[in-house]
Amino acid sequence: MSSEQPLRARLHEVIFEADTTAGRTFDAILLLMILTSVTVVMLESVPSVRDEHGWLLIRLEWLFTGLFTIEYLLRLYSVRAPRKYATSFFGVVDLLAVLPTYVSLLIPGAQALLVIRIFRLLRIFRIFKLAEYLNESRALWVAIKASSRKILIFLFAILTIVVVMGALIYVIEGPTHGFTSIPTSMYWAVVTVTTVGYGDLAPATAVGKFLAVILMLMGYGIIAVPTGIVSAEVVKVVRGQISTQACPHCGAEGHQYDAVHCRKCGERL
Amino acid sequence: MSSEQPLRARLHEVIFEADTTAGRTFDAILLLMILTSVTVVMLESVPSVRDEHGWLLIRLEWLFTGLFTIEYLLRLYSVRAPRKYATSFFGVVDLLAVLPTYVSLLIPGAQALLVIRIFRLLRIFRIFKLAEYLNESRALWVAIKASSRKILIFLFAILTIVVVMGALIYVIEGPTHGFTSIPTSMYWAVVTVTTVGYGDLAPATAVGKFLAVILMLMGYGIIAVPTGIVSAEVVKVVRGQISTQACPHCGAEGHQYDAVHCRKCGERL
Amino acid sequence: MSSEQPLRARLHEVIFEADTTAGRTFDAILLLMILTSVTVVMLESVPSVRDEHGWLLIRLEWLFTGLFTIEYLLRLYSVRAPRKYATSFFGVVDLLAVLPTYVSLLIPGAQALLVIRIFRLLRIFRIFKLAEYLNESRALWVAIKASSRKILIFLFAILTIVVVMGALIYVIEGPTHGFTSIPTSMYWAVVTVTTVGYGDLAPATAVGKFLAVILMLMGYGIIAVPTGIVSAEVVKVVRGQISTQACPHCGAEGHQYDAVHCRKCGERL
Amino acid sequence: MSSEQPLRARLHEVIFEADTTAGRTFDAILLLMILTSVTVVMLESVPSVRDEHGWLLIRLEWLFTGLFTIEYLLRLYSVRAPRKYATSFFGVVDLLAVLPTYVSLLIPGAQALLVIRIFRLLRIFRIFKLAEYLNESRALWVAIKASSRKILIFLFAILTIVVVMGALIYVIEGPTHGFTSIPTSMYWAVVTVTTVGYGDLAPATAVGKFLAVILMLMGYGIIAVPTGIVSAEVVKVVRGQISTQACPHCGAEGHQYDAVHCRKCGERL
Repeated sequence: MSSEQPLRARLHEVIFEADTTAGRTFDAILLLMILTSVTVVMLESVPSVRDEHGWLLIRLEWLFTGLFTIEYLLRLYSVRAPRKYATSFFGVVDLLAVLPTYVSLLIPGAQALLVIRIFRLLRIFRIFKLAEYLNESRALWVAIKASSRKILIFLFAILTIVVVMGALIYVIEGPTHGFTSIPTSMYWAVVTVTTVGYGDLAPATAVGKFLAVILMLMGYGIIAVPTGIVSAEVVKVVRGQISTQACPHCGAEGHQYDAVHCRKCGERL
Repeated sequence: MSSEQPLRARLHEVIFEADTTAGRTFDAILLLMILTSVTVVMLESVPSVRDEHGWLLIRLEWLFTGLFTIEYLLRLYSVRAPRKYATSFFGVVDLLAVLPTYVSLLIPGAQALLVIRIFRLLRIFRIFKLAEYLNESRALWVAIKASSRKILIFLFAILTIVVVMGALIYVIEGPTHGFTSIPTSMYWAVVTVTTVGYGDLAPATAVGKFLAVILMLMGYGIIAVPTGIVSAEVVKVVRGQISTQACPHCGAEGHQYDAVHCRKCGERL
Repeated sequence: MSSEQPLRARLHEVIFEADTTAGRTFDAILLLMILTSVTVVMLESVPSVRDEHGWLLIRLEWLFTGLFTIEYLLRLYSVRAPRKYATSFFGVVDLLAVLPTYVSLLIPGAQALLVIRIFRLLRIFRIFKLAEYLNESRALWVAIKASSRKILIFLFAILTIVVVMGALIYVIEGPTHGFTSIPTSMYWAVVTVTTVGYGDLAPATAVGKFLAVILMLMGYGIIAVPTGIVSAEVVKVVRGQISTQACPHCGAEGHQYDAVHCRKCGERL
Repeated sequence: MSSEQPLRARLHEVIFEADTTAGRTFDAILLLMILTSVTVVMLESVPSVRDEHGWLLIRLEWLFTGLFTIEYLLRLYSVRAPRKYATSFFGVVDLLAVLPTYVSLLIPGAQALLVIRIFRLLRIFRIFKLAEYLNESRALWVAIKASSRKILIFLFAILTIVVVMGALIYVIEGPTHGFTSIPTSMYWAVVTVTTVGYGDLAPATAVGKFLAVILMLMGYGIIAVPTGIVSAEVVKVVRGQISTQACPHCGAEGHQYDAVHCRKCGERL
């Protein structure tokens, strides 16, 4: 058992850390494999490519699935708390990244779900020590979380508009113009209020068009609300870059957070 | 009569308040019933579901309508000022939530309007004592009300653009390309300026396309205006510069948070 | 001639001013007539309405044109500087509001341009002494004018993107997929970059779709730029509501522009 | 050789500078020629125009290409560092502006790429000494660059959503409803999330429509994020908090306007 511990420790260092050359090489190869395997899944779904290279692509798919399965098992083996890893976000993603291939033996077509592997790329932030990017995304996250309650209220308002407008257009236009049910009409209401406007459903009667006009103006106008909310929060976070620190030498205030020297007298802060 | 008063008082407590266990249970059941009944109305409109379970759904619809009718009558009975309740927002919604079923006996299809019941869900804020959410939505409301005048001017400008552009495209494209009348062309102008773009109407001539391009760039550019307005107001509200307090003496609103005296009449706030 | 001067003066008062009862009544009737005549023009363009009431609508059109012509001549007669009025914004609109009917004798269909009358409604701001609305729109105008240079640069950038992307998609997709010429392809590029998306033209090849994806993401991303610009200016204008005045009694600063009393001590400012 | 130096110097002054009358005249003629030649390329692509004036347009195209080629060679000859010019942005654009005509001898249709000439118009800013416009666009650029990291994270998030949603809709809708492959489905996801909504692909099943609704609401909601980011940065730049100055010693950017010393190394700015 004495020889096993070092192996587990070394495996952990290579697979989970990015401090050593071996660890960084492992991560770089892993990223490349994830990107390649996602591309393979995509190509496999294109009929013309599948007809010509289908045999090769399926082999590659099984190869990557095999490698990722081994990697998953090694992660489980080398980590100190396997259960905690298995139930963590990355643990679940790592599992979901291999399952669809096995499932596709029972349900053909399930391998399209292998694109879940793209989530594994999120490790990229950890690997390249993109601390600054992490800081930025944390700042964004703080801004979004701070406005989440206002956005929930906003979504509730949208939902109410969609339900009521969907029912109204269903009564006005009816199945003869394609609005076959209230859920379908609600789908149309979302398509309209978000200004997507596929055009697969469009009002044909004068009253229906008038209702659609109201809905469009609403959608066009209320987009300003979440934008305003998030803007206000981002402004607050961005402004948070001005610290409350005063220069110990000249007393000047209002320095940026990353300032090392006073912008007035040049002294160290 | 002495036994009636306590009954009315207890009914009032259960139906209108959410302080006692009975009241909270009543509200929870009510919310569940509202959601179920709206779902029933939606399902009833789907042809395939109606063909199979139509009989059951209509029964459920009448059951919910009956229960909501009884609830409405009990509310009228237990409230101190029945007329005031009947003409209040919730009173009207409570009535509109049951009427369509009865109307559908005369006009088939009217029951789709039962989705108005969704508005009853607004009670949710009161029930769960979501005071913080209420504060947030009041803050939003203050921001929207403060910018309402600017938004009215904006809507008037949009209306003018839509009328003039609609008439121009009607003259340019004409009924041969689907622009059968000025109202229809105005509908197209709204579809275009709000960037919805169904595609049920699209210019076919070179001049018409040029006009459409101008209209699109306008719509794409002026969306910035309401967004800017609302942003600015939300920033003010978020920053807490403007409170939602009204002067107890002259009723003036829009005071700064640190205000001690009304800025209009000088009274203490 | 002594009797003529008072007539001209009185006419001027009634037609141009809104201080007397006669003036206000004249304006109210005028507004009503403008709205009615625009509605008549719109209805006249709807085939089903024209077939049934065409005779009546054309009569009304000529009636309104006659009345507006008389009004225009009276304005010219009663104003002190007729040439200055005739070349002013409202003078030109007043003339354009009657011309199309006469032109329609030569070119049928020109009467659709009578909707230009809608611009006459802009007088509404003057008439109802909507000074506050004027202030608001002036504030908006200041914000838009302050950002006009940035928006010009932005439009130039959009134009460049549209020209280059239009030419690229023309080369890639070609006339076989509907992209019959570079101007048509530029029209498609505008439809895409503004997120309108009619769908009358859509890329069919893989490369074309990839180009469209880039263009959409650009359009989706750069909308943030004008919005950001206008927001920033509106924030500045809105913040202009805080005056630089200090309370003469307690010295508190940061009062709103419309403040009459100090918000800290309640003294008159 | 003594007579050559002055010629080169004079050529440089006329072609590259805009201080003398000759230089300004040269630039004005150049701008006019660029605009005309781009218009010629566009017109040449319109079938009806080409059929009638094709002969003339092709002559003009070769004329402009010839003149621009001579100009390019003169620039190479008169500039002090030809290699540096040839590899600069404007050098590459000047070359790309003539190449397609020659290439079109081998590959017909390549001349559509001549619209690259539009980029030459960027010189307009230099020519008319539009220093103020340059300042404005630099301010915009600083704002965009400051938010580039946040926008990269945002684009990465969009990409992940598009890949996963594209794969899901491919599994749900399948080739029978037009979603023939994952790349095509990803194209649909971009069309939907950016609210473009061509309608060439639209979900037909109930589950697919539900997924589309989620995607639309996402797209409608997250547009607020880049807008908020750019707004916040523009607000900072507009407010003049952040100058476009770089430290002469360590090259650090993003100093506040009133900064006297670099905040990174403490050197005088």
